[in-house]
Amino acid sequence: MRVSEQVKRILDGYESDNPGTKANLARILMHGRLGGSGKLVILPVDQGFEHGPARSFAPNPPAYDPHYHYQLAIDAGLSAYAAPLGFLEGGASTFAGAIPTILKLNSANSLARAKEAPSQAITAGVKDALRLGCAAIGYTIYPGSDAAYDMMHDIAELAREAKSYGLAVVIWSYPRGGNLSKPGETAVDICAYAAHMAALLGAHIIKVKPPTEHLELEAAKKVYEAQKIDVRTLAARVRHVVQSCFAGRRIVVFSGGEAKDLDGLFNEVRAIRDGGANGSIIGRNTFQRPKEDALKMLDTIIQIYQGKA
Amino acid sequence: MRVSEQVKRILDGYESDNPGTKANLARILMHGRLGGSGKLVILPVDQGFEHGPARSFAPNPPAYDPHYHYQLAIDAGLSAYAAPLGFLEGGASTFAGAIPTILKLNSANSLARAKEAPSQAITAGVKDALRLGCAAIGYTIYPGSDAAYDMMHDIAELAREAKSYGLAVVIWSYPRGGNLSKPGETAVDICAYAAHMAALLGAHIIKVKPPTEHLELEAAKKVYEAQKIDVRTLAARVRHVVQSCFAGRRIVVFSGGEAKDLDGLFNEVRAIRDGGANGSIIGRNTFQRPKEDALKMLDTIIQIYQGKA
Amino acid sequence: MRVSEQVKRILDGYESDNPGTKANLARILMHGRLGGSGKLVILPVDQGFEHGPARSFAPNPPAYDPHYHYQLAIDAGLSAYAAPLGFLEGGASTFAGAIPTILKLNSANSLARAKEAPSQAITAGVKDALRLGCAAIGYTIYPGSDAAYDMMHDIAELAREAKSYGLAVVIWSYPRGGNLSKPGETAVDICAYAAHMAALLGAHIIKVKPPTEHLELEAAKKVYEAQKIDVRTLAARVRHVVQSCFAGRRIVVFSGGEAKDLDGLFNEVRAIRDGGANGSIIGRNTFQRPKEDALKMLDTIIQIYQGKA
Amino acid sequence: MRVSEQVKRILDGYESDNPGTKANLARILMHGRLGGSGKLVILPVDQGFEHGPARSFAPNPPAYDPHYHYQLAIDAGLSAYAAPLGFLEGGASTFAGAIPTILKLNSANSLARAKEAPSQAITAGVKDALRLGCAAIGYTIYPGSDAAYDMMHDIAELAREAKSYGLAVVIWSYPRGGNLSKPGETAVDICAYAAHMAALLGAHIIKVKPPTEHLELEAAKKVYEAQKIDVRTLAARVRHVVQSCFAGRRIVVFSGGEAKDLDGLFNEVRAIRDGGANGSIIGRNTFQRPKEDALKMLDTIIQIYQGKA
Amino acid sequence: MRVSEQVKRILDGYESDNPGTKANLARILMHGRLGGSGKLVILPVDQGFEHGPARSFAPNPPAYDPHYHYQLAIDAGLSAYAAPLGFLEGGASTFAGAIPTILKLNSANSLARAKEAPSQAITAGVKDALRLGCAAIGYTIYPGSDAAYDMMHDIAELAREAKSYGLAVVIWSYPRGGNLSKPGETAVDICAYAAHMAALLGAHIIKVKPPTEHLELEAAKKVYEAQKIDVRTLAARVRHVVQSCFAGRRIVVFSGGEAKDLDGLFNEVRAIRDGGANGSIIGRNTFQRPKEDALKMLDTIIQIYQGKA
Repeated sequence: MRVSEQVKRILDGYESDNPGTKANLARILMHGRLGGSGKLVILPVDQGFEHGPARSFAPNPPAYDPHYHYQLAIDAGLSAYAAPLGFLEGGASTFAGAIPTILKLNSANSLARAKEAPSQAITAGVKDALRLGCAAIGYTIYPGSDAAYDMMHDIAELAREAKSYGLAVVIWSYPRGGNLSKPGETAVDICAYAAHMAALLGAHIIKVKPPTEHLELEAAKKVYEAQKIDVRTLAARVRHVVQSCFAGRRIVVFSGGEAKDLDGLFNEVRAIRDGGANGSIIGRNTFQRPKEDALKMLDTIIQIYQGKA
Repeated sequence: MRVSEQVKRILDGYESDNPGTKANLARILMHGRLGGSGKLVILPVDQGFEHGPARSFAPNPPAYDPHYHYQLAIDAGLSAYAAPLGFLEGGASTFAGAIPTILKLNSANSLARAKEAPSQAITAGVKDALRLGCAAIGYTIYPGSDAAYDMMHDIAELAREAKSYGLAVVIWSYPRGGNLSKPGETAVDICAYAAHMAALLGAHIIKVKPPTEHLELEAAKKVYEAQKIDVRTLAARVRHVVQSCFAGRRIVVFSGGEAKDLDGLFNEVRAIRDGGANGSIIGRNTFQRPKEDALKMLDTIIQIYQGKA
Repeated sequence: MRVSEQVKRILDGYESDNPGTKANLARILMHGRLGGSGKLVILPVDQGFEHGPARSFAPNPPAYDPHYHYQLAIDAGLSAYAAPLGFLEGGASTFAGAIPTILKLNSANSLARAKEAPSQAITAGVKDALRLGCAAIGYTIYPGSDAAYDMMHDIAELAREAKSYGLAVVIWSYPRGGNLSKPGETAVDICAYAAHMAALLGAHIIKVKPPTEHLELEAAKKVYEAQKIDVRTLAARVRHVVQSCFAGRRIVVFSGGEAKDLDGLFNEVRAIRDGGANGSIIGRNTFQRPKEDALKMLDTIIQIYQGKA
Repeated sequence: MRVSEQVKRILDGYESDNPGTKANLARILMHGRLGGSGKLVILPVDQGFEHGPARSFAPNPPAYDPHYHYQLAIDAGLSAYAAPLGFLEGGASTFAGAIPTILKLNSANSLARAKEAPSQAITAGVKDALRLGCAAIGYTIYPGSDAAYDMMHDIAELAREAKSYGLAVVIWSYPRGGNLSKPGETAVDICAYAAHMAALLGAHIIKVKPPTEHLELEAAKKVYEAQKIDVRTLAARVRHVVQSCFAGRRIVVFSGGEAKDLDGLFNEVRAIRDGGANGSIIGRNTFQRPKEDALKMLDTIIQIYQGKA
Repeated sequence: MRVSEQVKRILDGYESDNPGTKANLARILMHGRLGGSGKLVILPVDQGFEHGPARSFAPNPPAYDPHYHYQLAIDAGLSAYAAPLGFLEGGASTFAGAIPTILKLNSANSLARAKEAPSQAITAGVKDALRLGCAAIGYTIYPGSDAAYDMMHDIAELAREAKSYGLAVVIWSYPRGGNLSKPGETAVDICAYAAHMAALLGAHIIKVKPPTEHLELEAAKKVYEAQKIDVRTLAARVRHVVQSCFAGRRIVVFSGGEAKDLDGLFNEVRAIRDGGANGSIIGRNTFQRPKEDALKMLDTIIQIYQGKA
């Protein structure tokens, strides 16, 4: 594998990492149809934990099978596939080497009660990622939750272990709990803050939700107004989030958010691209449609990142 | 031991496991009268912890003796015998090699108070399973309990350790606690969700209760209705649970549930079979009858799984 | 040391233990005047923690000295001596090899507040037992306490470690806390349940209090009545507890309970013997009398177990 | 590097440390424009965690880039640069050897709720400091918080580990929480107490806020009055804090406190110098101005410590 | 060093300890002006943590310097010097070999809030004691506190580690918290109980406060009256405490209690001596006076223990 110039520039941002970790980042960035472009699209499938199997897979029953998602990600030419332990175990050997995988180490579920201290169960470890041949670990933090300091401490330990083995680290940074209002969870100040903290925690790839124009914290609002930070368009907000991740030295990807119509989704992706982010993580929108529809949708998204759509 | 084609197909589902773990799964699947058929019947005896000795064994006093259960499982031609530490220690040498055993690592008891965060005591470890020559570890999680995330984290650690030694992992997934209603504990949406989470946690064998037609979660109910998921018969519900376990790539067994008359039990087993599950775990119904009666009952159950009754 | 046939039969019950542990059990069972008979009398001195020094030792001041208890146990021809760390350290070298010792790993004290979650402090470890030349570790659990699951987890870990070094494990199983009523703490159903759980936790020697006729749990009461379990005499109740410990495959000993007159004590011991238990653990009744009186009392107890009194 | 006499005298105060730790302290004390003088100015950048990226960096956007701070510290001739994991990772290789770095191991953030037990998340470890080539670890304690004992225990463990590898230890001691009043957080008695505890915990460099004249604790107030401890000027209070750090055997530095005008800041620095402290840690005042302004400001501060301004 | 007969007899009480620990006890008992007599006077300086620097050292400013206390202990011919980590680090090299030191591993402070579960922060470890060349570790427990079981568990672990390296163990046993009344904290029954528990935890040297005539616990009161335990004089109460520490097989020392006039203090010391205790730990009374006064005071105390005053 010859690493492209664009990817080389991205890797240069990870200057403190060992060659093993850089190689795993390169595996993701050089893979699939966007390989070498510095853009990436990741398929995440943790809906089974989050919403249960029926809500996740009944709309498209072949998706009950773990092989389905590996094959979908491969057929669509995606950059990587992320899932919890069992789902990766279910296809890790069949698809060994066929697509970079990310082992999601923690997960929430809909049976757990809502609290001011929302958290997630740690359901796998770094050694599992190694035995399954993964390129990276994934972990969710809930900034704002009364459990956030514990979650941060846990990922700090897991990330150190992962990096020592040459794995990359992906952090899902989803503000919630504590004093945060519901709109605050996707407010642009909170989203940029959450992304920045993921970067400070040592994440290689940072995953946040597309931010809204809302500003949650009074102290931040003053600064946004005084400094005239542009948050009027999604592209501008994405650019602000990317800047908040070490001025672009970290890979930032955005989730597809709530299910919406395809045009809405494509416009969102265009804004993410125009804001200078590195790509998308798209779950439900992908595997809850018939495969043909999903492949067509992903083809369009990839073309958007290629500047062709 | 020559592994049958049916068992080989099942083992193929465990593609990420090392040969040690596959061999232990094969030990269970090739043992007893159902050996090689892909079906299995397991004898679990953790009633001593759950209900105390008198409620468990006084109806059939020979059952106070740990040897009784080993011998019963052997005489009935069952696939494996599962019990807590002390009960296995009591016969592990006498019956070494005579029947695959599963060490149950955690247990609840009736002296503990009911709470919104029900849990179990961890009463043994993976190293105990090794020194006792077990084929697998067993562990119960309570999805829905405020203690569920901790229980999941614990089994994630124990399962990783077990797999590294070539042991198999059996998870009892029993929803309770938190916001769950009493009927919700056996609701079909909850049961399928609980089974799916056990699979995501990396279980090789998943054990749940036979689900009722009840739907607990509003968000799930909508999907069951929209997607017209058939939950009208027990067989259909079992089929849904099996599908929820990676589209049949994981072994799923069902408990006998509350004590009932024999015909009720046999019909339940037929539904489990017809739903495509792999078998039954039958405790109280077995050892709380005179041995002759138990053997006759188990013979019928085995014949049901053989398609002869 | 040539192990007697009776002791050999007892040791056969511990079929999963390594030779080191069996040898330590044999050391206890072959020691003292009851050596070889399958019966045993143990001197436990943890009153210093439980009630403080004045209440424990002022009635017989020589007992302030740790040597006193070693010598008393030796002079009386007892089977073993059990005490917390400091008390064993105080004589372990002087009396090395003179009598088997049991290091009590946890202890409560009267300064701690009564709670619904009573527990004990862990005040020593398995490595301490090794360096002091002990034959066994001792540990108390409080079934029913809101802290019971933690206590069980702790002894499970300690017992595994102890067994790996060839030590034996003694569990004091004292129900209390949670929803248990005061009479429930010594109710026969609770006592048998507590003894059974100690056996399931892997104890070699189980220590409970003499049970009363009271039945605490409704669900259990029904079974005791339906199955006509005889609980009218202490001997019958002891027999029921012994049966609950794997049908006699585990050594069961009883405490002397509350201080009472000597005839009351001797009758209790006779009932324990007639119920088929293995012996007694007698603390306060022993060291709170002048040594001559204590020796005379212990002589009678030993004669009772020998069938001579 | 030839260590100056002044620095040698300071190092003599760390008589129990190994040569590795002394060498790292020397690296800091011999670096930059104040190198060799016994004075030091450190640039700390943990505002990203504390206040989020916009509030921290939008006033001077180049500061979003981790390289900016390394370069600023180098260009200004500062003694060391302190930051959380991600920010150091972002430039550790480019600036390897160019300036001593301090890895801040824990951090708070503005999304966490105010409580009586304020704490911080541990976001990095000692091994991270080693792989990033740092000279020291940094850690914040909150004396007075209900979480203070845990924070102290954590830094005790981390400091022991750091010293064993030859790293130095910097403690930020910031009283808050529990019964402390808001003015009490910077009261001179509390500040001296907090500094003394950091020294007792084994810190090599102690960082506190400039204390006010306020006295918080009744018991302390009496002593301050009886012993006529001079707390009327900031210089006197600084002198008292320095004395409280082992009579000057420990390096004490002060933060710049709340943003204020430059003259106010310079006067504060003069008082710190006149009180005999070793220097300043200046964050927000530095990187929230245009670089030229910041360099001019730092030049003045350095000249103050050189006695030239 | 030739150990005196008196010291040899004391060491014989520590029969289970390894030669390393005995040698460290001997270092303390053979050191200073009371060396060889079986008596000892220890200088403890943990007031910096407990009351802060101003309250501790402002009355005698040279005491801000850690060297001061080493030198004072040496000049006074004391047996040992005990302090927290930082204070020992501050002079451990200068005074290496000059006086035996005791590293205090945990400490409370006046900023922490009073609670029913008072505790202390663990601020150093056994490995620190080793690298600083200490003869012993020191640890405080609060019997009666709702945190007491945890504190006991911690010292049990630390003591085991310390003994394995040949260090001695000193336990400060200070009842407080939970249901204890304020007078109960120094009641003679509580004090004897607290001392006994320290001995049971494996302490080599036990440190308690001089007990009052008050009896706190009803159950104990009955025994003190029935057994006519003499608690009328301080000497009698000290004798009772010493007896409670394994009939004199453990070294028992008393603190000086609240600051009082010198005659009061000397009389207290005489009572401690007459009660058969091994000596005193005197902190505040020592370093809060001018050095000459302190030396004179300590000279008198030593002469009292020598039977000359």
